[in-house]
Amino acid sequence: MLVYEGKAKRLYETEDEHVLLVEYKDSATAFNGVKKAEIDGKGQLNNEITSLIFQWLDQKGVKSHFIRKVSEREQLVKRVTILPVEVVLRNVVAGSMAKRLGLEEGTPLLSPIVEFYYKNDDLGDPIITEDHALLLEIASEEDLQFLREQALIVNQALQQLFSDIGVRLIDFKLEFGRDEQGSILLADEISPDTCRLWDKETNQKLDKDVFRRDLGNLTDVYQEILKRLRGEISHV
Amino acid sequence: MLVYEGKAKRLYETEDEHVLLVEYKDSATAFNGVKKAEIDGKGQLNNEITSLIFQWLDQKGVKSHFIRKVSEREQLVKRVTILPVEVVLRNVVAGSMAKRLGLEEGTPLLSPIVEFYYKNDDLGDPIITEDHALLLEIASEEDLQFLREQALIVNQALQQLFSDIGVRLIDFKLEFGRDEQGSILLADEISPDTCRLWDKETNQKLDKDVFRRDLGNLTDVYQEILKRLRGEISHV
Repeated sequence: MLVYEGKAKRLYETEDEHVLLVEYKDSATAFNGVKKAEIDGKGQLNNEITSLIFQWLDQKGVKSHFIRKVSEREQLVKRVTILPVEVVLRNVVAGSMAKRLGLEEGTPLLSPIVEFYYKNDDLGDPIITEDHALLLEIASEEDLQFLREQALIVNQALQQLFSDIGVRLIDFKLEFGRDEQGSILLADEISPDTCRLWDKETNQKLDKDVFRRDLGNLTDVYQEILKRLRGEISHV
Repeated sequence: MLVYEGKAKRLYETEDEHVLLVEYKDSATAFNGVKKAEIDGKGQLNNEITSLIFQWLDQKGVKSHFIRKVSEREQLVKRVTILPVEVVLRNVVAGSMAKRLGLEEGTPLLSPIVEFYYKNDDLGDPIITEDHALLLEIASEEDLQFLREQALIVNQALQQLFSDIGVRLIDFKLEFGRDEQGSILLADEISPDTCRLWDKETNQKLDKDVFRRDLGNLTDVYQEILKRLRGEISHV
């Protein structure tokens, strides 16, 4: 039974009430759903990339909702209640941060910056402070501290992984969910839909900005990321 | 010599290089300058109200740039370099916070919330986190802590003052400047242009929202605030 349909994925119940089936769609959306397209093969690529990354992160000690990939565009995950906050980690100024603060895209940050956004389409996912998150009862102070720490840990791991395949990790968005025991687990996906990835040598964008900014064929660059990742973590 | 002209004030140099003359204009602006009007008497009212409040705060131990009122629409202040950050303190949800977070205007906050905004007209004065303020080199971590503390101290003092004259202090905006010695002083103005003030009994808005939202005659309500303040702090 379908329990949730988002912009890029559908979630179905399984025989195990603690397990959901995620189906990755071919839909691409940007600017809070204003720009849309169907892109053949995107769902399959993000399912594969996310599966590889979550398995790799698990080996590095980062727990996520991921259980296993079960088909080209499907994976099984632990059932969690998604926290209505997007955790963004930035290593380099890009995207909304460049616009918001009037800074040049590509400016490296001296240390990574963690931002929280309120996951609410009607409000356009506004950036929030920790005080706002507490006011909105999104998470406790302790939870926010945990989210911040997890984002930094994931960043350190992913920076290494992507560096090894010739890619700069510019920024990325994480979502988290709470399981039945109340533990917070990394959830959603980690893919070129949710990360900014620039080729180390050429600065070519290998992520969803290709779609947002009409820079070429999206599946070509996602395929390139998948190919490089497979070469690096084929042992998983 | 005119050294700066803002939306609501002009600053002139004086014979003393450490002292500026502030002239309060009758201009009213809102929505980042999109809505504008000239309102006879507004400058004089804000000059008087700000002078009363800064003198009163000084007695409560809060140092500001204010020296003394010298004419109906002029006051002398210490010359400072204004920090490009607006410090907003909120006791009750209203205005941009209500819109941004989808909360009902008038919802009381359990404890006051301090927000920082990057003072930059071209960018529409975006809300920023402390990390952004550090990145933009607006202030040091220590400075930000000081701004936060000052905002809370000013809030405690002003809440008492306004409560005694039958007014709820909903929120307010502060600006700060650095003097020659590097000390940070409260600056700019504190008036119904920079505070949301609601009558305790009727919830009538006694502030610039009267102009923003076309709720009646602005000088009538500013005059009402001045009258009540004079009754309370006539001893200054």
